[in-house]
Amino acid sequence: MKIEPRTLKGFRDFLPKEAKKRQYVLNALKKVFESYGFEPLETPALEYEDILSGKYGTEGEKLMYRFTDNGDRKVAMRYDQTVPLARIVAQYQNELPTPFKRYQIQNVWRAENTQKGRYREFLQVDADVVGVYSPLADAEVVAITIKSLQTLGFKKFKILINDRTIFSKLVDQGIFSEGEMPKIIRAIDKIKKIGDEGVIKEIVTEGFTEEKARNILQMIKTQEKTDTLNDISTYLESLNLDKDVFQFEPTLARGLDYYTGMIFEVEVEGYEVGSIAGGGRYDNLIGIFAGRDIPAVGFAFGFDRMIEAMETLSLFPNELYTTKVLVTFANSELQKKAIKIADELRDNAINTEVYLEDTSLEKQLKYADRKLIPYVVIVNENNLVLKNMAKRTQEELDTEQILKKLK
Amino acid sequence: MKIEPRTLKGFRDFLPKEAKKRQYVLNALKKVFESYGFEPLETPALEYEDILSGKYGTEGEKLMYRFTDNGDRKVAMRYDQTVPLARIVAQYQNELPTPFKRYQIQNVWRAENTQKGRYREFLQVDADVVGVYSPLADAEVVAITIKSLQTLGFKKFKILINDRTIFSKLVDQGIFSEGEMPKIIRAIDKIKKIGDEGVIKEIVTEGFTEEKARNILQMIKTQEKTDTLNDISTYLESLNLDKDVFQFEPTLARGLDYYTGMIFEVEVEGYEVGSIAGGGRYDNLIGIFAGRDIPAVGFAFGFDRMIEAMETLSLFPNELYTTKVLVTFANSELQKKAIKIADELRDNAINTEVYLEDTSLEKQLKYADRKLIPYVVIVNENNLVLKNMAKRTQEELDTEQILKKLK
Repeated sequence: MKIEPRTLKGFRDFLPKEAKKRQYVLNALKKVFESYGFEPLETPALEYEDILSGKYGTEGEKLMYRFTDNGDRKVAMRYDQTVPLARIVAQYQNELPTPFKRYQIQNVWRAENTQKGRYREFLQVDADVVGVYSPLADAEVVAITIKSLQTLGFKKFKILINDRTIFSKLVDQGIFSEGEMPKIIRAIDKIKKIGDEGVIKEIVTEGFTEEKARNILQMIKTQEKTDTLNDISTYLESLNLDKDVFQFEPTLARGLDYYTGMIFEVEVEGYEVGSIAGGGRYDNLIGIFAGRDIPAVGFAFGFDRMIEAMETLSLFPNELYTTKVLVTFANSELQKKAIKIADELRDNAINTEVYLEDTSLEKQLKYADRKLIPYVVIVNENNLVLKNMAKRTQEELDTEQILKKLK
Repeated sequence: MKIEPRTLKGFRDFLPKEAKKRQYVLNALKKVFESYGFEPLETPALEYEDILSGKYGTEGEKLMYRFTDNGDRKVAMRYDQTVPLARIVAQYQNELPTPFKRYQIQNVWRAENTQKGRYREFLQVDADVVGVYSPLADAEVVAITIKSLQTLGFKKFKILINDRTIFSKLVDQGIFSEGEMPKIIRAIDKIKKIGDEGVIKEIVTEGFTEEKARNILQMIKTQEKTDTLNDISTYLESLNLDKDVFQFEPTLARGLDYYTGMIFEVEVEGYEVGSIAGGGRYDNLIGIFAGRDIPAVGFAFGFDRMIEAMETLSLFPNELYTTKVLVTFANSELQKKAIKIADELRDNAINTEVYLEDTSLEKQLKYADRKLIPYVVIVNENNLVLKNMAKRTQEELDTEQILKKLK
């Protein structure tokens, strides 16, 4: 029986062209994270189900991949990287430094509705500081986000920033109750999609009069920056960043329930699909397994959106090939000579291929074209020719000259 | 109810210290692979079960993680990277160059017996050339293995090399039948563990007389290098490698059924647990989904063994930290100055942390010790002090001097 080669819906194969883009972005991000002292962490794809369940709300419970393994254990596939981080912090508390600054870049799995253009396997890129309440940590998290974007070539972007305590202040003032707050936050969170009137309607459906709803929105809109946000601004200003990059936005709510303080989102000009990064402070989540409050602040990149935004804005370097030179040979006698030259080029940190079969020069050049290899060295009996594939020019050179030219 | 934070048996958390080692090795390997024109490929963690099943033998069927997903599809978790490669080659045949040189570095999952020190989630590091029969491809695969080992600092190792056609030649000579060949290979494969007499016993249990068994072993041992092996040697010699690195070993069998030609294994002196890399030619496997013969040759590193061997031989660089400097401040007034200096260091490609809380200098220095950060800059009111944490020495310097010292 012939089996049809196919990929599961919502899952993706990344052929070299795409895989290289992903690697390029990840390498850049890791470098930035490490330049701030963040260290890598890896956790397993499978966890005991009880570690993950009950942590992601009703929707999350439905989307989690879970099954019973051969040993009759109930297991679930990684759904995010925050709950595993909470587990790690509890399980290894004596081995980890405080603050614990970790980044984690692994796939997560969610049985999403793929019709909405969502994937069932996607990479999460998280960086978090665990263990400090100081706004300096909040500022650093925002600074790293900015530095990452700049490193990848993003020029025009905005950081919208807010503080969840603005909402709790309104609770203190009796504008709405503690229990109503999550509903208000969820309504406000949609303001960009549905506008002011839409938000007011949403609040009304939660049981408020229209007048009250208008009043709530108005009160939120006229809130002033909190002390924490002022502190963060001060720190960020010492980094010589353009002031216009930040924007206090009291209607910024971020959907997730668990934020407790500063929250932020990144908007990129020219890419309107949505925010490509965001984060905030969440002081009540990381301690769930340790059984005590542990403060934390962090951020995540929407990796797929980020790749998409970079494509839209043409931020990938043209020379995102891995091979720079293909060494070809006119006949099999010259194969050995070709291997030697290729090896010399590699020793000089030039990525080099030798065509792996004794075949026509034409076929070898086609291969270079197909793989977008920019240079070809043709090994002839008595000389070497360097061919520039884009310009279709060529010149006779010796090995030394070729090295000089390509380095 | 308190949930005990714990990890599934056979699965591992990699805290920063271990995760950094893994990254160090992977970065080095990717660089070598790319220097030969190999490109990255990623495939999903889940596949349709029918893609994987029937490909890994009776044992493999038992060890595969499989379940029914929310959409009632039978799915299985990635068990290796060769069958997914075969799927890719069939599914995207018009998009891939020939030869297709890809590397793939992803986790696989097997419900192994953990008592044997095996893991249920482990990283596979594979590189393969698909689409050429030429022994030049075989030679390149061996050359990359050697270059990788050298890059990582391995000095004394041996490449044991053989050709599976040696066994088929004995079939042609009527020494044993085609059907008996896999049994003979499996017996011979154990020669290092059980010795000559052990192998003879094994062959006897397969239904041969002792005399015949002795004769088979003797015949195998006295085989000469094939033309293919001679060709490979010739290519490898042009790479100026020490000749003693290679050793023709006619009793090398490698367990896997699917090899059809050259096979090799790496032995590292001082690490006797087992081979840390190996590979060979397998011309009948990659075409299973495409429905035609597609030649292939490749190799894999035993990643966990490799890490273990590097630890045993102390091949990890001492300075495998990510942070080089911690900038501390004597009081909160100096925090801003500290942030600025840290940023300047980062701009000069020096990984730098600022302590994220306003606390005692003592606590800040403890943090540097705990994270093995080698240098600390203390920001005082009127000067900067650079402290070498290992030597416990310190000196007063200005920013410029600190930069010079640390670069």
